[in-house]
Amino acid sequence: MKRTAFFISDHTAITAETFGRSLLSQFEAVTFERVTLPFVDCEAKAIETCRRIANAFAHDGQAPLVFSTLTDEHLRHILERSEAVVFDLFEVFLDRMEAALGQASAQAVGRSHGLGDAALGRGRIEALKFALECDDGIGVDAYDQADIILVGVSRSGKTPACLFLALHYGIKAANYPLTEEDLDLSTLPSGLRKHRARLFGLTMNPERLHQLREERRPATRYASLEQCRNEIRAADALFRAAGLSYLDTSTMSVEEIAANILHRGGLRRTRW
Amino acid sequence: MKRTAFFISDHTAITAETFGRSLLSQFEAVTFERVTLPFVDCEAKAIETCRRIANAFAHDGQAPLVFSTLTDEHLRHILERSEAVVFDLFEVFLDRMEAALGQASAQAVGRSHGLGDAALGRGRIEALKFALECDDGIGVDAYDQADIILVGVSRSGKTPACLFLALHYGIKAANYPLTEEDLDLSTLPSGLRKHRARLFGLTMNPERLHQLREERRPATRYASLEQCRNEIRAADALFRAAGLSYLDTSTMSVEEIAANILHRGGLRRTRW
Repeated sequence: MKRTAFFISDHTAITAETFGRSLLSQFEAVTFERVTLPFVDCEAKAIETCRRIANAFAHDGQAPLVFSTLTDEHLRHILERSEAVVFDLFEVFLDRMEAALGQASAQAVGRSHGLGDAALGRGRIEALKFALECDDGIGVDAYDQADIILVGVSRSGKTPACLFLALHYGIKAANYPLTEEDLDLSTLPSGLRKHRARLFGLTMNPERLHQLREERRPATRYASLEQCRNEIRAADALFRAAGLSYLDTSTMSVEEIAANILHRGGLRRTRW
Repeated sequence: MKRTAFFISDHTAITAETFGRSLLSQFEAVTFERVTLPFVDCEAKAIETCRRIANAFAHDGQAPLVFSTLTDEHLRHILERSEAVVFDLFEVFLDRMEAALGQASAQAVGRSHGLGDAALGRGRIEALKFALECDDGIGVDAYDQADIILVGVSRSGKTPACLFLALHYGIKAANYPLTEEDLDLSTLPSGLRKHRARLFGLTMNPERLHQLREERRPATRYASLEQCRNEIRAADALFRAAGLSYLDTSTMSVEEIAANILHRGGLRRTRW
């Protein structure tokens, strides 16, 4: 069984994709062909969109699903006359929000992401710059400015987590790679001690680490399962001895890792 | 007028934040205090959440708004008995989706992001690794593997765009910084010519570039408005002469830049 799902927006379609994907994940038995159509911001594009919906309908023999965040009522009406089953975020929620807030909504094209993004973009770009400069312990002096400092052995996922924290949440995340020397000492490296309150450990099961390291440097001591086991054992012991919060990332996506760090690290995202 | 908005999820709360923020942006006249509560995945946490809602109600004197993606019906019912006005994504859409698809939904806790994320994570981490290795033209040989190559003068926003394309869309984006020597020649640098079909230019107004460069190296020739004007003029001329698609990013957030590149660059995101 195959159905086409369209994510349609007058802007980036990030919201339409996010909410649509979340809903689609509730239907495992169905295979979805996913099509994102951003910047549908005029009548001509809305009509072209209906044509694509009609084609998908003819091809699948079943009504496509549409997840839409169109704010313009006229464009929404055009879409509603298509063959698709339309799930429109604004259509569904705005009336109730207007009632709850006692205010009329803006309903302006593109408003769904447009406002406040300049300032928001700025904070996150700064956080991103910070993450890039601090990557792999190069900017140790900058630890003073970090919102959080991720600690873990090589390939434990520190860099993607730092970049996601920066780009998505505007959090300034530094990282410190634990070396074999650090692990031999069994205490926090001296440069980290004064930042203890902002340290957060990353760990994973040794098999997964072995697999990741094999991709980078196959058949080396560095990548061997034994080495991975030793390093993870020592790192976990270090986290416990130092009383750090730490997270097993073995089965997590980068979103999940970042959201867990934010939550368990007690961070407040100040940069929306 | 101030209201509290909660974003509540049994998982990362990324979906709840995204759809809630999109809806809140339609109400400019209201100031929202935003609180994200991820990992609300058991009765005790749902009850604690209701307590926080009650506190916000007492403090604001107005009903808080809740944007929720709770999948567990029991937890949803607990939340519905709170003082908040609850906007629940699954509550609202799942019945209609079940009808459209003729299938029951999973309704499993955490299912909203859980499935498929391992593979998905992998593709995006690979794309991220690619972006980091290629940053600032270091990996010119890797241009063969790139899905797209962003071209622009220094500080035109290539790096954040590449990282966002990788982390969010799994697109392998390389970047090439145009030097003064490149600009003097008025033709595409020789190393880029064979990749012409995958080149995409970034430009911005000279005043904005001047401002960004002043932050990096204040009061230098590099940052001067005159230099920015000359470089942007030469870069735009180069993009036009070479027939490249290019984008003015002056007023765009990184999401908007990435979504525009994806759309106008004709890229198909293969890694969901």
